[in-house]
Amino acid sequence: LSTPAEKRTPTFEALGERGVIDLIRRRFPSPAAILPVGIGDDAAVAVSERGALEVLTTDSLVEGVHFDRRFSSFRDVGYKALAVNVSDVAAMGGTPRLALLSFIVPAVGSREFEVRDLDELLDGFAEIAAETRVALAGGNISRTAGPAPFVVDVSLVGWVRPRKVLTRAGGHAGDALYVTGTVGTAAAGLGWLRAHAANPSTAPDDAGLAECVSRYRRPSPRARIGAVMGRTRAASAAMDLSDGLADAVTQVAEASGTGAVIDAEALPLHPAAVRWFEREGREPIQAAVAGGDDYELLFAVPRRAKGRLRHAAGHARGVPLTRIGELTKDRSIVLRRDGASEPLPRGFTHF
Amino acid sequence: LSTPAEKRTPTFEALGERGVIDLIRRRFPSPAAILPVGIGDDAAVAVSERGALEVLTTDSLVEGVHFDRRFSSFRDVGYKALAVNVSDVAAMGGTPRLALLSFIVPAVGSREFEVRDLDELLDGFAEIAAETRVALAGGNISRTAGPAPFVVDVSLVGWVRPRKVLTRAGGHAGDALYVTGTVGTAAAGLGWLRAHAANPSTAPDDAGLAECVSRYRRPSPRARIGAVMGRTRAASAAMDLSDGLADAVTQVAEASGTGAVIDAEALPLHPAAVRWFEREGREPIQAAVAGGDDYELLFAVPRRAKGRLRHAAGHARGVPLTRIGELTKDRSIVLRRDGASEPLPRGFTHF
Repeated sequence: LSTPAEKRTPTFEALGERGVIDLIRRRFPSPAAILPVGIGDDAAVAVSERGALEVLTTDSLVEGVHFDRRFSSFRDVGYKALAVNVSDVAAMGGTPRLALLSFIVPAVGSREFEVRDLDELLDGFAEIAAETRVALAGGNISRTAGPAPFVVDVSLVGWVRPRKVLTRAGGHAGDALYVTGTVGTAAAGLGWLRAHAANPSTAPDDAGLAECVSRYRRPSPRARIGAVMGRTRAASAAMDLSDGLADAVTQVAEASGTGAVIDAEALPLHPAAVRWFEREGREPIQAAVAGGDDYELLFAVPRRAKGRLRHAAGHARGVPLTRIGELTKDRSIVLRRDGASEPLPRGFTHF
Repeated sequence: LSTPAEKRTPTFEALGERGVIDLIRRRFPSPAAILPVGIGDDAAVAVSERGALEVLTTDSLVEGVHFDRRFSSFRDVGYKALAVNVSDVAAMGGTPRLALLSFIVPAVGSREFEVRDLDELLDGFAEIAAETRVALAGGNISRTAGPAPFVVDVSLVGWVRPRKVLTRAGGHAGDALYVTGTVGTAAAGLGWLRAHAANPSTAPDDAGLAECVSRYRRPSPRARIGAVMGRTRAASAAMDLSDGLADAVTQVAEASGTGAVIDAEALPLHPAAVRWFEREGREPIQAAVAGGDDYELLFAVPRRAKGRLRHAAGHARGVPLTRIGELTKDRSIVLRRDGASEPLPRGFTHF
């Protein structure tokens, strides 16, 4: 079954490279005060944030690995492609500013990429760009010669004040560990989508589960709380939960030269995620801490910074911040529940 | 015929994501004065160039489109992936500083990507990074789930002083057009490689043709002359020749609101390229101006800037700078030869 001819929009090929660039340029006019030269020249030229350090990151979404067209619209993909990069900048205590947006469009893909698809992708990108005050500075479009997944690649430049940077390595034994939002929510959402892959247009009846699905499709990067935790020096270290809580705790502890204890009872699990994992016969805590794609932030907070933490939490605009454990002198990474200790289960690996 | 087992190196999969990141981090230690936080955290943190504007660009090399493993080694691919971005920064009058390097590694490709391939790619990248004083700040590695081309994607951040920026749009009627190096050289080199695809290990006997092949595999971006032409304000506009001279002349003229006349006799063609195009039965001038992959620079130079141009040319370290025509009030884009005019042939389109 093909779409009726009158409903089709031009393909990328029909529009041509300059047509595509013009379309993007019209959608994202360059704010002259920030971008004296925006989209369409050999490179963009931008005004720096005075006296600040630059924060640089890049991340790709690859079809079939990071998204599935059955589960995510192009609008979701455009949103998430920027969101995951904003999350990385926030995890450094930084504020995002300028993005470069690149596509690799397959010559032979699951279906021809049309201008309508590009429009939808740009809608999602524009939505989060507006939320996080990011300007699109430029990008690149490549077509492949043969079969390939669709790829969206974003590079993001932000800023952070000197001495306000949050690395993974700044933690000390005794620092409390805090996490924003909930843990395992996106993994439950993805689980539901996979279980309903045969009939992808259905939505969960359960409003909580619908929230898990939405969290998977469109993660809300914790841009504001990341910047505030850095600026106020409430945190000594931070990392985002792109690869799951267990991975983040392990990496912060290893980089800081400490161990960590996580208190299972304290973990903020979404009730619908718990129900979903139980229905699937999985132990909810293990599934939640191993699950990737939660773009929450993990912070190490020194004891002396408790007042600053309260202040920072007051600027979190309703994003909950939960104490889930602490960094320890002992180098092991431990999950404590019912008075007993077990190794914190890893889970998510990229390849 | 497969490589003997003892000669194989670990695959990407065997090394794992952290193994690959550690390998890259060891190869590219972060210079602390520039990169307080380098490879391996959520994002890199860099010291800005004081009082300068930022220059931002990104470009990908896609296997089967921008390179062919029969024609280019991974070392060439690593070199070229950064070179094409340096060329874009130079075309703005900027100086490159910091790169983000990303890979998309196919799960199913022309053959398994091994650590040796990564090492070679990093060798080429390191070579041009050292030549152009670019520090590697970070990057990303994604694997695909199915068949895909290998992709290298680089984002590059540089700097330029305010009021020294060279856009495409700054030219005026009467400005002379100058080009660095030679034109059509890379196209001739690629032509030779394609004609010998059945036996790719052969090299051209003709030393000139070998130079054309080398120019295709490893373009020398004109980093120094670009920055000098901007800094001295010898040029009013600039663009690189990634998509060929005809494309660059057209784009500079259109963006500047002028036309252009190119003098065929003045075009700096490589003698071996001329011989190659003639052997192939192609008209050398037409083939040369339409051929892509020359990472030379096109400059518009106002009459009053001739003294500055001489000064800038003195800093070009032997890179020739040739006057090839001028921007005109009349909006047509014309090639003039033997006293007659013809439209400047376009040629290279991306998709």
